[in-house]
Amino acid sequence: MSDVPLSPARVGSTPVGAAIDEANRVAVERMTAVRPRLVGVARAGEVIPGLGAGMLLHAGPPIEWARASGPLRGALVGALLHEFAQEGMAADEARAEAMLAGGEVRLEPCHHHGAVGPMAGVTSPSMAVWVVEDEATGRRAFSNLNEGYGKVLRYGAYAPEVLARLRDLDQEIGPLLGDALAAGEPLDLRALIAEALHMGDEGHNRNKAGSLLLLQRLAARVVRAAGATEGGSERAAAALDYLAGNALAVLNPVMAACKLMADAAHGVPGSTLVSTMARNGTDFGIRVSGLGDRWLTAPAARVEGLYFPGYGPEDANPDIGDSTITETAGIGAFAMAAAPAIVTFVGGSPEEATAATLEMYEITVAESPHFTIPQLGFRGTPTGIDLRRVVELGITPRVNTGIAHRLPGIGQIGAGLVRPPMEPFTAALRACAAAMGVG
Amino acid sequence: MSDVPLSPARVGSTPVGAAIDEANRVAVERMTAVRPRLVGVARAGEVIPGLGAGMLLHAGPPIEWARASGPLRGALVGALLHEFAQEGMAADEARAEAMLAGGEVRLEPCHHHGAVGPMAGVTSPSMAVWVVEDEATGRRAFSNLNEGYGKVLRYGAYAPEVLARLRDLDQEIGPLLGDALAAGEPLDLRALIAEALHMGDEGHNRNKAGSLLLLQRLAARVVRAAGATEGGSERAAAALDYLAGNALAVLNPVMAACKLMADAAHGVPGSTLVSTMARNGTDFGIRVSGLGDRWLTAPAARVEGLYFPGYGPEDANPDIGDSTITETAGIGAFAMAAAPAIVTFVGGSPEEATAATLEMYEITVAESPHFTIPQLGFRGTPTGIDLRRVVELGITPRVNTGIAHRLPGIGQIGAGLVRPPMEPFTAALRACAAAMGVG
Repeated sequence: MSDVPLSPARVGSTPVGAAIDEANRVAVERMTAVRPRLVGVARAGEVIPGLGAGMLLHAGPPIEWARASGPLRGALVGALLHEFAQEGMAADEARAEAMLAGGEVRLEPCHHHGAVGPMAGVTSPSMAVWVVEDEATGRRAFSNLNEGYGKVLRYGAYAPEVLARLRDLDQEIGPLLGDALAAGEPLDLRALIAEALHMGDEGHNRNKAGSLLLLQRLAARVVRAAGATEGGSERAAAALDYLAGNALAVLNPVMAACKLMADAAHGVPGSTLVSTMARNGTDFGIRVSGLGDRWLTAPAARVEGLYFPGYGPEDANPDIGDSTITETAGIGAFAMAAAPAIVTFVGGSPEEATAATLEMYEITVAESPHFTIPQLGFRGTPTGIDLRRVVELGITPRVNTGIAHRLPGIGQIGAGLVRPPMEPFTAALRACAAAMGVG
Repeated sequence: MSDVPLSPARVGSTPVGAAIDEANRVAVERMTAVRPRLVGVARAGEVIPGLGAGMLLHAGPPIEWARASGPLRGALVGALLHEFAQEGMAADEARAEAMLAGGEVRLEPCHHHGAVGPMAGVTSPSMAVWVVEDEATGRRAFSNLNEGYGKVLRYGAYAPEVLARLRDLDQEIGPLLGDALAAGEPLDLRALIAEALHMGDEGHNRNKAGSLLLLQRLAARVVRAAGATEGGSERAAAALDYLAGNALAVLNPVMAACKLMADAAHGVPGSTLVSTMARNGTDFGIRVSGLGDRWLTAPAARVEGLYFPGYGPEDANPDIGDSTITETAGIGAFAMAAAPAIVTFVGGSPEEATAATLEMYEITVAESPHFTIPQLGFRGTPTGIDLRRVVELGITPRVNTGIAHRLPGIGQIGAGLVRPPMEPFTAALRACAAAMGVG
């Protein structure tokens, strides 16, 4: 495929090819040098840079209300109702929709504010968010608290019980978890992810072990933090029920950890490393280390997977969420060989899960020095997606993901595997070539 | 090997062979029909049948003080000192040794009392024990609370801090865990083991996931149980620290669950299924379903494994403990294919761990309907050791285990793999043949 710009066949042995290799080496080294630590829980509007009143953050590349999919619209409406409640206003769905349709609410990607959110990813100023910090640089990333399964905002649901749950997370559970974190050392998320991968997680859709490791590290701290307060015992028990009862509890801090890693790889001149992959439910978009802040997008793909009883492909929304940050940082579907039991949830066989990981070594530039796969003789996970290899080999990254109903208010209807569209990768490679003055 | 009594080559197509097959089918069905549930924590002397003052239980087949190994002697002395303390007496090591050497203390196997204990397995009347019950039959089994790593009684240590820890387990942590269990539904240990095997445990030496699953199920219940009491918050935090800080916390209840399963398979006339494998640090012994309560023993083997820094094979005690009950019930080394990360602890490679499981299918009569191995396409674990196959194929069961220092008071010095001696299996098979009137 010598018509691929910057392909090894064309530039492999030239100074341009060597410069790209070196830039990618620098980028992936920066990615793997990050040591993300969970330092706290705080109100989004107080810690996320640039997030203020009248603004909502969402997953994926930029999008306006008119083009937003059902679950994203539902989550935006729900988040506004949640903000209304903070100001003592009634839950007025019509008013919320009118404000969104009329452009009264500014919509910006989580990714533009150092944040990431699963599925719709909608984050409003009054929500509690996990705060993750890179030990060496002090850089921070943020993600909201995972609501668990069933009817939840991130799948576009905003029934009264969904809003009540959000209030509980913001006002009871989040602050207590924040107190517990403040009372001791930050939690080393890099070590936690590494341990979870040895316990059958892959870090994206299977986070059972990681969530229990989070419970393990926080359980006694939560009890001691609540101990001196009125009703502390029941508050502590509720927070432990939250951590113990949600096998995705750790997903959001893991995503923020991956965001820190991916952002560290961004901005290396000449690098063809993919530093962002994200979906807003309508578009899939990427950003590339050497291409600045521009997004390259294409319509989001359909997910192939297993559906909950009563649902099928015709009910499914296209691929949605920032959780592809896990694959961007070398875990998730890239680490599925470590998580054979995930096939009960996303479909396929354990052999196919292993094959997914092995294929990803073809399009990545490094093997993680931190995250290893026992099943592959403790080989490091495939890390750092090189645009050039994606296009030249015709292999798009593997992603495993939840499936949202296309209508707002319903929620998750399945889980599966998806390949993002090739177009943004091809377009990005052309842009890289143009920027370097190479055909 | 047609000289093997009862070998298929000799009796395979005869009525005797068919009767043995049928007896083994019945025995293994009884084993897998058990649904062990964790129902409580209680004082050993109050719940273990036949355990009273002046008696200590120990791991493995029967043994007297004169033949006891270093770690077993240390644990027996420590347990007596622990009992002295309950009666307000000073820790008088010389007096304890004199009582043991003089036969003033009755020593009996845990296995004779429905109990099992890891390593030395010494259980005294005042110790807290987990109570596990079979849902259908109400039969019970017992195991003490795991003390964690380092200097611990089960490896023969009895320094003041060891005894202080035992007191804490008996008087603080055990009773609170008992209150937490009493306040809700029993915990389904069969489901817990199945889940842990999908999270990289094998249930004998790797119990990280299972211990976290125990924490998950008990955390909020512990907090609520402690809530109304004076100093409840700190008591709850200490109990959570215990569960969260000990990756072997679940080993003892899992062993009691396996004891219930193995005992259910015992006593089927004509069955050649192994219903007990246990070691006291001097002897390895087995019991067989169709042979009544007699033990068949041989000197315990040496463990091949990885040593902690500063120790080597010359420091090691022979194989010790009742924890081989896990392999007897079809997990532990038999399920190592599910736990590739265990090789960092016991040595070998992930491929060898898989090979260990595959080999055990050769000597077992069934595949577990409950415990499955994702890495083998969710195949059930090899379950129910058939004496005939062990002897005919020359394949002894695989066991993975901790390594104790041969001197009392030092503790664990490594972990590894061991094959028990063949002699008891050969002798048992001859005894079966004689009982059936076959050559």
